[in-house]
Amino acid sequence: MTYELHYWPAIQGRGEFVRLALEEAGADYVDVARQDGIDGLVAGLDAPPRPPFAPPYLRDGDLVIGQTAAILLHLGPRLGLVAESEADRIWTHQIQLTIADAVAEAHDTHHPIASALYYEDQKPEAARRAEDFRRNRIPKFLGWLERVLATNPAGPRHLVGDRLSYADLSLFQLVEGLAYAFPRATERALADTPKLVALHRLVAARPRIGAYLASDRRVPFSEDGVFRRYPELDG
Amino acid sequence: MTYELHYWPAIQGRGEFVRLALEEAGADYVDVARQDGIDGLVAGLDAPPRPPFAPPYLRDGDLVIGQTAAILLHLGPRLGLVAESEADRIWTHQIQLTIADAVAEAHDTHHPIASALYYEDQKPEAARRAEDFRRNRIPKFLGWLERVLATNPAGPRHLVGDRLSYADLSLFQLVEGLAYAFPRATERALADTPKLVALHRLVAARPRIGAYLASDRRVPFSEDGVFRRYPELDG
Repeated sequence: MTYELHYWPAIQGRGEFVRLALEEAGADYVDVARQDGIDGLVAGLDAPPRPPFAPPYLRDGDLVIGQTAAILLHLGPRLGLVAESEADRIWTHQIQLTIADAVAEAHDTHHPIASALYYEDQKPEAARRAEDFRRNRIPKFLGWLERVLATNPAGPRHLVGDRLSYADLSLFQLVEGLAYAFPRATERALADTPKLVALHRLVAARPRIGAYLASDRRVPFSEDGVFRRYPELDG
Repeated sequence: MTYELHYWPAIQGRGEFVRLALEEAGADYVDVARQDGIDGLVAGLDAPPRPPFAPPYLRDGDLVIGQTAAILLHLGPRLGLVAESEADRIWTHQIQLTIADAVAEAHDTHHPIASALYYEDQKPEAARRAEDFRRNRIPKFLGWLERVLATNPAGPRHLVGDRLSYADLSLFQLVEGLAYAFPRATERALADTPKLVALHRLVAARPRIGAYLASDRRVPFSEDGVFRRYPELDG
C-alpha cells in the first residue's frame, strides 16, 4: 500500500511533520503535489464526502485524513512510531497537539492579523507578537518539553518511554523551525534545555532522517512557510 | 469510576467542550476546581510524570490527559459519543481538531499579540484581526462544517454518520460562543448554513444538554473566557 501525502510542494510547513514520520519509517509514499502539481491538492479539499479543511491530508486506501496531528495519530501504529499501550499513545498525541500549538503560534508571529494578508501588511503587529513569542512562549514550550523529558520514568532520551515516537520527530522539526526563524532567541532558550538538545541531535543522527535531510526531498526553509526568518522578528 | 475534570472554574473556555460531553453522557464526574478552588488545578500542571501543558485536563483513574481534543478522543468511546469504526473515529477527531482551530482563532481576535497582556493593551490589533475573522474565517469554518453535514452519506442531521458524537456537541459550543462574541457577524454567517443551525438546535434540545444549560453548572459567558463580547470587535 502506497501512502499519498498531499501538501504544498514548495514548503516544509505542517506537512513536514508527516514527511519526517514517513521517512523515518522508510514507508512507501508519494508526495503527490511535488510530483503532479497542486491542482489535485486543491481539488481534494472539495472532494466529498469528508473533505479535509486544509492541507496536509493523507490518503491511505479509501481513507482521507486531514489535520497533521490526526494523520500522525493514524500513522503512528502503522509505522511503528508509537508505543503499544493506550496510555502511551494518548500521551504521545497530547505532546503532538502541544507541539502543534507551538507551530501555530510561530506562524502567527509573522501573520498576527490575517493569513490572507502579506507579512508586509502586518509588520508592526508582527513585531509585537514576535517579542512576546521570543520572551515568553518559546521558553514556555521548550521548557515544558524539557520537563517531559526530565520526568520520563524511562529516562530522558525520548519523550515517551524508551523508544522513538513521532513526537520525538516533531520535537526535532519544531527545534529546526525555531532555530531557523529565531536563531538568537532559540539559542538562548536551548541553553536551558540540554535534554531537548540531545534528543534533537539523536533524531538528526537517525540514518533515514539524515539521508532525508541531505536529499532533495527535504524542501529548504523559506519565507513562504510556517517558520520564516525575518531578522527584525528575532529581536 | 468518577472522572475528574480540572479546569478554570469561572469560565466556559476550552473546558466547556469536555463538560458538554460528560453532561450529555450523564457521566459521573467532578468539576474539581469548582468544588475545591484552583490551587490543585495549578499544582496539577507541575505534577510529574506527564504534566499537562495547560488546563483543561482530565483524570481517569491513573491517567491524566491534557489537550481538549485528546480528552475527547479518550472519552468518546467510553461515553458512547463516537461511532465504532476506526474511519469514523479519526474523522470525528479531525472535525474536533478543526473546531479547536476555530476556537483558537476566536481567542486571538481579542488577544492577537499576547495572552499575557490585557485586551486593553492590544485593542488596535484586535480590531484588525477581528475584522478578518468576521469577514473570512467565521464563514470559512462554518461553511466547512455545513459542507461536512451536506455531504454526510448518512444525512445532514449529524456530522458523522447518523448518530450524535462529541463533534456535534463541539459544533454546538462553537456556534454558542461565536453567537455570543460576534452576534451580528455570526447571524450573517448562519444565514448560509441551515444544516448547521438545525444541528445546533438539535443539540440544544437534548434533554441532558437542556438541563445542563439551565443549571448553575453552566458558567455564563463572560469577558474572561475564550469567547468575549466586545461590541467594537463585531463590526
